[in-house]
Amino acid sequence: MSGNLAPSDPTPSSCAQSADADGVAGSREAFGSRLTQAMTQYGPVCVGIDPHAALLESWGLPVSASGVREFSLRTVEAMAGTVAAVKPQASFYERFGSAGVAALEETIAACREAELLCIVDAKRGDIGSTMAGYAHAFLSDASPLAGDAVTLSPYLGFGSLAPAITLAESTGRGVFVLCLTSNPEGATVQHARAGDTATVAATIAAQAAEANRGAVPLGHVGLVIGATIGSALADTGTDLENLNGPILAPGFGAQGAGPADLARVFGPAAHLVLATTSRAVLQAGPDTASLRGAAANIVAEFSAVS
Amino acid sequence: MSGNLAPSDPTPSSCAQSADADGVAGSREAFGSRLTQAMTQYGPVCVGIDPHAALLESWGLPVSASGVREFSLRTVEAMAGTVAAVKPQASFYERFGSAGVAALEETIAACREAELLCIVDAKRGDIGSTMAGYAHAFLSDASPLAGDAVTLSPYLGFGSLAPAITLAESTGRGVFVLCLTSNPEGATVQHARAGDTATVAATIAAQAAEANRGAVPLGHVGLVIGATIGSALADTGTDLENLNGPILAPGFGAQGAGPADLARVFGPAAHLVLATTSRAVLQAGPDTASLRGAAANIVAEFSAVS
Repeated sequence: MSGNLAPSDPTPSSCAQSADADGVAGSREAFGSRLTQAMTQYGPVCVGIDPHAALLESWGLPVSASGVREFSLRTVEAMAGTVAAVKPQASFYERFGSAGVAALEETIAACREAELLCIVDAKRGDIGSTMAGYAHAFLSDASPLAGDAVTLSPYLGFGSLAPAITLAESTGRGVFVLCLTSNPEGATVQHARAGDTATVAATIAAQAAEANRGAVPLGHVGLVIGATIGSALADTGTDLENLNGPILAPGFGAQGAGPADLARVFGPAAHLVLATTSRAVLQAGPDTASLRGAAANIVAEFSAVS
Repeated sequence: MSGNLAPSDPTPSSCAQSADADGVAGSREAFGSRLTQAMTQYGPVCVGIDPHAALLESWGLPVSASGVREFSLRTVEAMAGTVAAVKPQASFYERFGSAGVAALEETIAACREAELLCIVDAKRGDIGSTMAGYAHAFLSDASPLAGDAVTLSPYLGFGSLAPAITLAESTGRGVFVLCLTSNPEGATVQHARAGDTATVAATIAAQAAEANRGAVPLGHVGLVIGATIGSALADTGTDLENLNGPILAPGFGAQGAGPADLARVFGPAAHLVLATTSRAVLQAGPDTASLRGAAANIVAEFSAVS
C-alpha cells in the first residue's frame, strides 16, 4: 500500500522548538488525521511495549532501566514502518524509578524520530491543577514524556479530564479514556448506573462522542474498550455509533481475541478500532526481522477480514 | 504531647538494603500502626506538596525540576516533627519528565531520613502484570519511588488493585483508594449504582473495610474522600463504620473545609481522617519557620475540636 502521509508535513510530531509557554506549537496535524493516515497505511494494529521481567530475560536483557531502554528501542526500530502505532506501558518503566522514566522518554523520542505513532499508556486521572500537570507532562510539546496520545482514567468523572482533552487538541495529540474493560472486577464500576439512566461506560462513551462531534476525519478523544468484553457493549447500553473517535482495544493475540472479534464485538464501530497486541509480537524478539515478521503476520490477519 | 514511636524500632522506613527479590524487607512496622502513632503524636494533618508554577514563583524558585526539588526538600525539612505526614503530588513532578521524577525520589528519600510519613499521590490503577508494575514502583523496598503509601484509582474495579494491596501489606506500606470526591463531575461515576444495590463509592468502601478486617490498630487500605463532599456519604450510602482504615481527606484550608467539618462530614469515622491541606501552608513559604508556624496553626485548630 502506498503512504498517505502528506509530504508537505515533514515534521508531524517534532515541534518542541517552537512551542510557546503552554507547550503549544500548533503546527502538528490533528491526532485524528494522523492516526487515520497511519491505520490506512499500515493497518489497524498497535503493538504494546510491555517490558516485564520475563520478556527482558527471554531477550537476554537485564531486568533494569537499561534493559527496558534497550528492549524498547529495539521494538521501536522493528515496528517503525510495520504497524500503525506502539503503546509503551508506563508502569514497566516507572518500576525502575526516574531511570526507567528516562528510558520511556528515549522510547518516545525514538518513535518521533521514526515517525511511528506513540500512545503512552499511563492511565492518569485527577482534577483541577493536578490534572493540568498530567496534561502538561503527557501532551505538551515542552515535555519529554509527550508522545502522540495518552490513556486516561475517569474515576473522577469524564469532565475532570478536560485540561488534557483541551491541551491535546491544541497540540495535535490525542487521549484514550478508559471505558469498558474485560477484567471481571471492572463491571463493579463500569456497569453501574447513574439513577435509572445510562451506565458509567455508556456515559463516558457519550461524553467522548460529544467532544469529537464534527471532527474530520476523526476526533482526538478515543476510548479504551477491551476486545474480550463479550456482550458488555450491549449489556451496558454503550453506543459507539456517534463516537467519531478511535477505540484502543487491548486483548488481541495472546489474550485471546482475533480479527473476527472486531466485527463481533464492535459491530459498525469496527473501523474505529486500533487493535492492540503485545506478547504475540514481543515473544518473537529480540531479533528485529522476527519481530517484524510476527507483527506483519498479525497485520495480515486483520487485512484478510477487513 | 510526648512521642508514641517505639524506641525499639529505630529504622521504621529504611530497610531497602535487606530487601529480597520482590522488594519485601519485612521488618517495617505495619502502615496502620505507623500512621496511628504519627497522628497521635502530631495530630491528624497531612500537608500536600503541590509545587505548581505560581507557588514556585512566589518562593523565588525556577519553574523547573530543580525548582520543584528545592521546594520539596524545604517543605519536608519544615514539616518533619510538625505534622503527621506529607503528600507529594506526582503530576507536579512528572510535568518535568524524568528529571522531575528524580526530584520526587529525592523528596521521598528526604522524608524517610526525617522519619516523616510520605504519601505519594499518584492515583495509579491498572490490571494484572501492569498493576503489579505500579505496585513495585510505589510499594517495593527496592524502588526509589516508594514512600509510605500511594493513592490508587479504581475505575477498573477495586479488585484490580490487589497486587498493590498485597505488596503494601508485606512491605509495611499503605494504599489510599479513591472513593468519593467533591468535584461535580465525580458523581457521574462515584454515585452510580450497580443494579438496585450499592453505589460505586459504597462498594469501594465496603471492599476496603473487608481488606482491613481484624487489623489492629488500623488496616493499611485507606480511602480518599473529599472534605467538601457535603452529604455525599449519606446520598451514596457509603458506610465508614467498619472501615478500620485511614481516610485521606483533601479540601481543608484554602479549599474551604475546616476542622468542624470533620464531625459534620465524617461523623463517627472522624477519628480516621487524615486532613490534607496544601496552599494554606505552602503560601507561608519559603521561610522554614513561617511554614512551620502555618502548619502548627492548622494542627492547633484540629486539636481544639477533638
